[in-house]
Amino acid sequence: MKSNLIARLSSILTPNELLLSAEERQRFASDQSGLDGALPLAVLRPATVAALSEAVKVCAAAGVAMVPQGGRTGLSGGACATGNCVIVSTMLMSGIAEIDADAMTMTVWAGTPLQVVQEAALEHGLEYPVDIGARGSATIGGTIATNAGGIRVLRHGMTRQHVLGLEVVLPDGRIVARLGKLVKDNAGLDLKHLFIGSEGIFGVITRAVLQLRPATRACTAALLAVRDHDAALACLSAARRTFAGRLTAFEGMWPDYWDFVCHKTELAASPLAADHGFYILAEFALEGDDSAHFENWLGQLLEDGIVEDGVIAKSLSETQALWRVREAIGDVDADFGAHINFDLGISPSQLGHFCDAGDRLLAGMAGVTGTLKVGHVGDGNVHFLVGHEDDAEVSDRIEQALYALVRDYGGTITAEHGVGRLKRDWLSCCRSPKEVDLMRQLKSMLDPGQIMNPGALV
Amino acid sequence: MKSNLIARLSSILTPNELLLSAEERQRFASDQSGLDGALPLAVLRPATVAALSEAVKVCAAAGVAMVPQGGRTGLSGGACATGNCVIVSTMLMSGIAEIDADAMTMTVWAGTPLQVVQEAALEHGLEYPVDIGARGSATIGGTIATNAGGIRVLRHGMTRQHVLGLEVVLPDGRIVARLGKLVKDNAGLDLKHLFIGSEGIFGVITRAVLQLRPATRACTAALLAVRDHDAALACLSAARRTFAGRLTAFEGMWPDYWDFVCHKTELAASPLAADHGFYILAEFALEGDDSAHFENWLGQLLEDGIVEDGVIAKSLSETQALWRVREAIGDVDADFGAHINFDLGISPSQLGHFCDAGDRLLAGMAGVTGTLKVGHVGDGNVHFLVGHEDDAEVSDRIEQALYALVRDYGGTITAEHGVGRLKRDWLSCCRSPKEVDLMRQLKSMLDPGQIMNPGALV
Ligand SMILES: Cc1cc2nc3c(=O)[nH]c(=O)nc-3n(C[C@H](O)[C@H](O)[C@H](O)COP(=O)(O)OP(=O)(O)OC[C@H]3O[C@@H](n4cnc5c(N)ncnc54)[C@H](O)[C@@H]3O)c2cc1C
Ligand SMILES: Cc1cc2nc3c(=O)[nH]c(=O)nc-3n(C[C@H](O)[C@H](O)[C@H](O)COP(=O)(O)OP(=O)(O)OC[C@H]3O[C@@H](n4cnc5c(N)ncnc54)[C@H](O)[C@@H]3O)c2cc1C
Repeated sequence: MKSNLIARLSSILTPNELLLSAEERQRFASDQSGLDGALPLAVLRPATVAALSEAVKVCAAAGVAMVPQGGRTGLSGGACATGNCVIVSTMLMSGIAEIDADAMTMTVWAGTPLQVVQEAALEHGLEYPVDIGARGSATIGGTIATNAGGIRVLRHGMTRQHVLGLEVVLPDGRIVARLGKLVKDNAGLDLKHLFIGSEGIFGVITRAVLQLRPATRACTAALLAVRDHDAALACLSAARRTFAGRLTAFEGMWPDYWDFVCHKTELAASPLAADHGFYILAEFALEGDDSAHFENWLGQLLEDGIVEDGVIAKSLSETQALWRVREAIGDVDADFGAHINFDLGISPSQLGHFCDAGDRLLAGMAGVTGTLKVGHVGDGNVHFLVGHEDDAEVSDRIEQALYALVRDYGGTITAEHGVGRLKRDWLSCCRSPKEVDLMRQLKSMLDPGQIMNPGALV
Repeated sequence: MKSNLIARLSSILTPNELLLSAEERQRFASDQSGLDGALPLAVLRPATVAALSEAVKVCAAAGVAMVPQGGRTGLSGGACATGNCVIVSTMLMSGIAEIDADAMTMTVWAGTPLQVVQEAALEHGLEYPVDIGARGSATIGGTIATNAGGIRVLRHGMTRQHVLGLEVVLPDGRIVARLGKLVKDNAGLDLKHLFIGSEGIFGVITRAVLQLRPATRACTAALLAVRDHDAALACLSAARRTFAGRLTAFEGMWPDYWDFVCHKTELAASPLAADHGFYILAEFALEGDDSAHFENWLGQLLEDGIVEDGVIAKSLSETQALWRVREAIGDVDADFGAHINFDLGISPSQLGHFCDAGDRLLAGMAGVTGTLKVGHVGDGNVHFLVGHEDDAEVSDRIEQALYALVRDYGGTITAEHGVGRLKRDWLSCCRSPKEVDLMRQLKSMLDPGQIMNPGALV
């Protein structure tokens, strides 16, 4: 059967579109989740939508599972190969099809890296506001499939908010497209929302129309040291009321994380003289006149004792130095050792309380080697890393405990990284059986053969 | 069968929750679309979700169609009774359940009028940015079911962007709820997007969690007269680049509309000395320091000849006077006579061109008595009113011509009012057969008996 399948695929795809060597198949087996993907039967990377559609039909007819893949930067295992599957990569469907500066839209192929999109927008004085650390490799298709978040959600929302149109190849090979540039379009159900955030289980996204915005001219970054998470919330609320939509990022770092990257390792240098109870990296889109206003505002917070110490970046390199502390989370793996990267979402006002409770839970647990907490606290999203002895039982116990706590707080087991293959069994900690049933009903409707990314999400 | 049904409903609902007199049934038969609804068998207005769920089960078992209804301000007939149906009104499920000022969220019952929500948010220094002329009667449930737009879409987006959580009673009576306050939550499919904009065909929305924002402190309204729609676009682009997110509204009025409300009728008084080719009502959220900047900016546009004349409102009453011209669209019915209210969406850069083409088409058409064009031009949305002799054949010819033009321009037959019962037959002018198929598949999945708002949307 396998050779039969390959023969049929070879008649549709060129050799460059169909990778068969064990070495190349291995290269596409896994994403950044740490999960080991199986060895796929083949890697399909069609260069056209027509070829993709035909190839999907062949796989569907053969009953062979397909795993859509973008830049493989996913952190939940959604792009990992399952047994007896083929990988469907958007790698060769890359590039910007059109930029319409009047409508402030960009039509782009799914395999285009996020950073390419960001830079092309800037060349037109426009901005695509989705931004994540993996910008160089993550694709537009992947960010749409995972409804990626990142550091600008506070101001601009998740990826979902920026997608105007989509083209998708369904699990049966049908191509469904709506690639208009309309911001307002209530003509029936808005089908694109079915596919955004669906982690590849409903088909392969091939093209998208993105909404751009006027580029933010100047950004002022400030690092603020406060007593604790409550003080950070007070700061957030003050910043929102004073600067409203001009607050573009509000990232938080707990002392465990700060110590680790600034003191225990050489991942970043502390821009502050002393240590504190909580650290905020905030960014503001200020115009000329606002700067003095901003300094006054910060001065007042210092005077009121809400902020204990602060650094305002005076140059691009100072801004980058501040961000380095925050983005060092991407580099902790080697030093921190085996760990689980929890991507939790809690109502912002309860996040501090939740993290304290989590710390208490873990403090008494055998096999736990440490924690690092950092996140998009303005959105109630914490990346809660728990180091542990390399032992499946220990890691299972940690997951059990922390996800149960999430359930008690009415939070989510994944704020932005998605469910993928890693978190599927924990979905019931934040979704009711009726919701899961509805998700399954949708899956059965759109993929009755259960061949598109089986084992992911539901 | 009917008396059987009523008997069973009477055992679930109180007399106040079950209206049976012909007079009361007539009162709930129609919305603001101009379509005459049939006389419903009964009006159900349960006061609790549990009672609603039970009543829906009874109707479903009896195979009796149900039409969800909010404030009946809909303009597409989606809330009009069909033959042999019962009305399910959210009227008695009204009120604000909770405001969480830290999370900036409001949990609200579906039957609450939009204006009540807006005012309650303001009392906390917050804002619910959806705003439409029908704010006094339109309900939160109705605005969610229609994904309402309005005058602040340019800055804040459609209703969809502001909904964090929903509770829905499905066509089989199942209650599905996710009423969290999380901005970021990628734990599986985001089911609420199925229901937002679904015009009641998937069930009855009973509760919602809304995202609020810090209230906009001061708004500066300006009326700008320009040569034509192209000049308006130049103005929009300049405003966006200079004020970005602080541009809150950008409404356009064509001369046919301006003449009608300012000269041919006494609906509003012209704030300008002379007539022009196109009129813009723009609103800016400016801080203290910005005002001078704004006046300079406008002065430059006047000097460059992009703007021919302009008025900046200096007081609340002057602001209201400017808005009166724009909002007079709600009062044209008596003077304008029989007409079709097209709610068209075209890519913003093509909207002027489209309207010119529409005017040319209609100029030569027998039975057309006039046009009024006004709209949210910053979003490419025009309300294109076409007056006609009271004759079904004439109105059909007008629809045929204008919707065909929409198709040629790749636009939408409804940017914000929805499809309802009035526009269902025209859906194919802006949706492909594959898209319509997918919508039908979803409908069959969620409502296999086709008893929830049958005849609406698909
Ligand atoms: C250093 C680093 C920082 C990160 N920071 C963030 C962050 O701040 N916020 C955040 O949200 N995520 C973050 N991520 C996670 C990851 O980058 C995102 O999930 C990203 O959107 C994945 O894009 P990708 O192209 O690599 O997708 P992949 O990893 O290839 O795939 C991800 C999922 O999407 C599906 N998929 C991919 N392409 C398509 C397609 N064309 N059609 C249908 N399905 C498809 C796959 O099947 C899989 O389920 C980070 C990752 C790293 C490594
Ligand atoms: C003067 C005026 C100005 C307007 N301006 C605008 C505008 O600027 N932008 C705009 O978008 N619209 C506008 N509209 C249209 C209308 O106000 C909106 O469509 C509004 O959202 C309807 O709310 P409603 O509660 O009156 O709903 P209804 O008219 O009662 O119902 C509308 C649709 O939603 C369904 N529905 C209602 N409640 C529920 C529920 N709880 N659960 C499930 N389905 C439900 C109904 O079945 C129907 O299909 C305007 C209308 C008027 C009369």
